Amino acid sequence: MKIVRFAAEGRVKYGVLHGDKVQTLRGTPFRGIRLTGEAYSLDSVSLMAPCQPSKIVAIGLNYRTHAQELKMPLPAAPLIFLKPPTAVIGPEECIIYPAASSRVDYEAELAVVIGKAARHVSTTNALSYVLGYTCCNDVTARDLQSQDGQWTRSKSFDTFAPTGPCIETELDAANVSVASYLNGERKQQGSTSDLIYSVPDLISFVSGIMTLLPGDVIATGTPVGVGPMFPGDTIEIRIDGIGTLRNYVTKDRS
Amino acid sequence: MKIVRFAAEGRVKYGVLHGDKVQTLRGTPFRGIRLTGEAYSLDSVSLMAPCQPSKIVAIGLNYRTHAQELKMPLPAAPLIFLKPPTAVIGPEECIIYPAASSRVDYEAELAVVIGKAARHVSTTNALSYVLGYTCCNDVTARDLQSQDGQWTRSKSFDTFAPTGPCIETELDAANVSVASYLNGERKQQGSTSDLIYSVPDLISFVSGIMTLLPGDVIATGTPVGVGPMFPGDTIEIRIDGIGTLRNYVTKDRS
Repeated sequence: MKIVRFAAEGRVKYGVLHGDKVQTLRGTPFRGIRLTGEAYSLDSVSLMAPCQPSKIVAIGLNYRTHAQELKMPLPAAPLIFLKPPTAVIGPEECIIYPAASSRVDYEAELAVVIGKAARHVSTTNALSYVLGYTCCNDVTARDLQSQDGQWTRSKSFDTFAPTGPCIETELDAANVSVASYLNGERKQQGSTSDLIYSVPDLISFVSGIMTLLPGDVIATGTPVGVGPMFPGDTIEIRIDGIGTLRNYVTKDRS
Repeated sequence: MKIVRFAAEGRVKYGVLHGDKVQTLRGTPFRGIRLTGEAYSLDSVSLMAPCQPSKIVAIGLNYRTHAQELKMPLPAAPLIFLKPPTAVIGPEECIIYPAASSRVDYEAELAVVIGKAARHVSTTNALSYVLGYTCCNDVTARDLQSQDGQWTRSKSFDTFAPTGPCIETELDAANVSVASYLNGERKQQGSTSDLIYSVPDLISFVSGIMTLLPGDVIATGTPVGVGPMFPGDTIEIRIDGIGTLRNYVTKDRS
């Protein structure tokens, strides 16, 4: 099942995709899937980020081949950082290239969407806390990342967490293809089978630190092939079984 | 004016302190201060963290003397990191000492509470976006901080952001005393006049990265004298003009 969040008739709603139709949900998907009976054609609605995380926990260096690319040793534990909720944008929205940076990279990531509050969860039970999976672009101002040492500024600009287009609830996350395409050309391609820490590992690890809440996101790290984007570019994250998250890069005009 | 958030009669409310009385506010303080006429005696209510930040932006190494203590060069720009909302606890609540760490430190900080949405704000206008100021303890698992390199895990455990006891709206933040007391003994003592980046500098810098929302917190960094706490300890953050934030350290029993 593919869950979407969308604007229609001036309101924000959750829905389920069925072909080219969106069937509206009663309330949120976090308390069970209940259809209202109302439906829209997909091309009449505007998809938004499919959840509103209270926090985005992202993982550094979680693909073996990406760690090798950066010539960094494999981490002894998952390396976590946070992206703020204000960084989230939905499909087809613009990534604003900040004036403070001259090197802004895409990072294709499989994102886990948490379905219910999780604290000190074991790897065995971890997947029962997952609502589903979506695509995330962990946009990063690479120059500021090295300049600061700490990664927060470089990954926290408004619009730096494109998320969507839907939450797929039936994905087997152990072996899916995660790719990015810049202006239609493939730049990254990896499989979650290359993850150093699996989705259950990450949920167990993170929930041992901080309580995960419904709608919270764990971005599981990016495969080999990260690179720069520039204003005017179109960037797509494509994950098998989920779909394509497309965004456009624009200059900061503020 | 001192704004508090509290539980009384099974509900959560905002209020204003007047001596030993709490006068209840209509709604939140972010849309203007309107009294309901209802009042409680302070000792009949349970104070909570005075705001519910969607994000806590904290600043590393922002006191000249603390940077010298850690033998670290002064940062060329404010060094930011995020603490998750799930880390927030209020006055008199327990800081849970995580099993993953054997060195958990207190860090006394002046915290700015944002009053209205702020994006790309100039230093000149910055203070008009402030609702007021409170005390924050930027609790840090020092061993995990050095182990990870990235600071997120070490600062993000549940209960690692004690905040309160009130939001003082009339503080001049340019020169206030910030101190911590462990079991009654003074451990840290600094003045915000020693800040490398002032409150207006920080609001301008952070709002140029991410939109700050009402209730969001900027923790402005800690003065010299950080050190460890252990289960059984009582830790207090005291800021002139705001008051005392008291918390207790307990073992993780989960």
